[in-house]
Amino acid sequence: MQGEHFADALIARVRALGHPLCAGLDPHLALIPPLFRRGSMAPGDPRTAEAVESFLDAVVERLAGRVALVKPQSAFFEQLGWRGVRALDRLLARCRALDLLVLLDAKRGDIGSTAEGYARAYLSADAPLRADALTLNPYLGRDSLEPCLKEAGQAGAGVFVLLKTSNPGSRDVQDRPSEGAPVWEHVARSLAEPCDALVGPATGWSALGVVVGATFPAQAERARELLPRSLQLVPGYGAQGGGAADAVRGFVPGPAGREGGVVNSSRALLFPPEAATDRAAHWEAALDASLTAAIGDLASAIATA
Amino acid sequence: MQGEHFADALIARVRALGHPLCAGLDPHLALIPPLFRRGSMAPGDPRTAEAVESFLDAVVERLAGRVALVKPQSAFFEQLGWRGVRALDRLLARCRALDLLVLLDAKRGDIGSTAEGYARAYLSADAPLRADALTLNPYLGRDSLEPCLKEAGQAGAGVFVLLKTSNPGSRDVQDRPSEGAPVWEHVARSLAEPCDALVGPATGWSALGVVVGATFPAQAERARELLPRSLQLVPGYGAQGGGAADAVRGFVPGPAGREGGVVNSSRALLFPPEAATDRAAHWEAALDASLTAAIGDLASAIATA
Repeated sequence: MQGEHFADALIARVRALGHPLCAGLDPHLALIPPLFRRGSMAPGDPRTAEAVESFLDAVVERLAGRVALVKPQSAFFEQLGWRGVRALDRLLARCRALDLLVLLDAKRGDIGSTAEGYARAYLSADAPLRADALTLNPYLGRDSLEPCLKEAGQAGAGVFVLLKTSNPGSRDVQDRPSEGAPVWEHVARSLAEPCDALVGPATGWSALGVVVGATFPAQAERARELLPRSLQLVPGYGAQGGGAADAVRGFVPGPAGREGGVVNSSRALLFPPEAATDRAAHWEAALDASLTAAIGDLASAIATA
Repeated sequence: MQGEHFADALIARVRALGHPLCAGLDPHLALIPPLFRRGSMAPGDPRTAEAVESFLDAVVERLAGRVALVKPQSAFFEQLGWRGVRALDRLLARCRALDLLVLLDAKRGDIGSTAEGYARAYLSADAPLRADALTLNPYLGRDSLEPCLKEAGQAGAGVFVLLKTSNPGSRDVQDRPSEGAPVWEHVARSLAEPCDALVGPATGWSALGVVVGATFPAQAERARELLPRSLQLVPGYGAQGGGAADAVRGFVPGPAGREGGVVNSSRALLFPPEAATDRAAHWEAALDASLTAAIGDLASAIATA
């Protein structure tokens, strides 16, 4: 989607498909099906990266045309060293060829020239590991987000800033009370202006999105009030216990059902028990069934919520 | 130092050398001296990673035996794609061979199995990109730090958790007032227990360190009160404007001068104007002079502060 506005591109696809499922690509080594396993599957074994590549090639082949967005989790590639990052590079190219939008979940955050380095690594038009969007951690403050916001504006890319994450420990910093509101709400307020500056011409949705866990639906509603034009990336649906109705609580009525974000499923989607097989046809059927179930669940939620 | 306790190993070296300088390895592409440049020096050009490798090989050769710790900044490698991460891999091996301790500045932070992925990538005994220590971002809460703390305990590695960073924007989240104290102090309090659990047998310093910018000396003193056994990583000395006396304000009297952390210099140390040359002897002299100046400055500060 080089050059196209990220939020416009994403929402156009979500509307056309009729559901907001984002497929999380977390290649857990212990869960990769026998069909794709090679060698020892230890992180340091060069064949492990090959196994991850062949697994994800097969996965994105099945996802193409059925989901708008995939979300590779950077840690699962980094744990394989540089060969893992090369596998990520190849995955990004594969997704581009299949017209799947990619949100790289790396939760980067740093200052000055280092933040510019992350923008150059993942968002700029000639980035070696160019994704369509990147997750960012706001602990270092507004100035730490600027280089990626600037690059998002120039390259048509998107960012998703962590507000309220799906884990229990998100209360420790994010929920700390400060001047009448939790810390994460102050972060949200600080994003209002750059969010408006990155609104897409076609849909009115901003390329500056936010992250709010499916396990915290009330906070998703509040985030929607504070940032009416921000897309919400909603993790924690499925394996972490958030239901579909809760996952879309921050969504608003749109031309094709409720919209305003994407709901991520990683482990439950990629590794249903039936997919633990060494037979290609069985694996394909299991992945398709898992995908169909998640799509159906979320399509109902945006239709009825 | 595989197996040895990180803080014990680091402080033993700092005492022997008589200064707390940490050499930040931030290979700014635009600043790499003519002597080492290859090809276009664009991030996507494969020769750029080779240039970075040859530059850093020469740098760590000069640092060996003179500094206790080097701090590669992950973004500068990631911006070169997988070839940059391979350059980081080779740098880590080179530093091990030269007996230089390595703190990887990656500011990672995530939850559950993803946080475990980062621990496996950088801290575990068989990590493909094993460093002696890693910087962590605490925005996702105490549970997000657990996997790396656990790995630090098992592998003898260290972590440095961001408290109060050196940039102006650090006020936005870190200084937010909450129940009588800024957010960063609450983060510090939440680290007291794991900090004590990771104290080294030889020195009493903990493998759980913290980050406090040289630009905020009063906060460094406060962090020392809250976490008496945490080593402080102090960025922002030199190029960012913090002086040596301010940089060691969180240090305490020790057997060889004030101790309790390391002070990082990146750009001012690696790229003095005189080093912009294509003559090897000139470059070596310029780097040595820059190193000698920083060492002298910090050695005085711990002797007199």
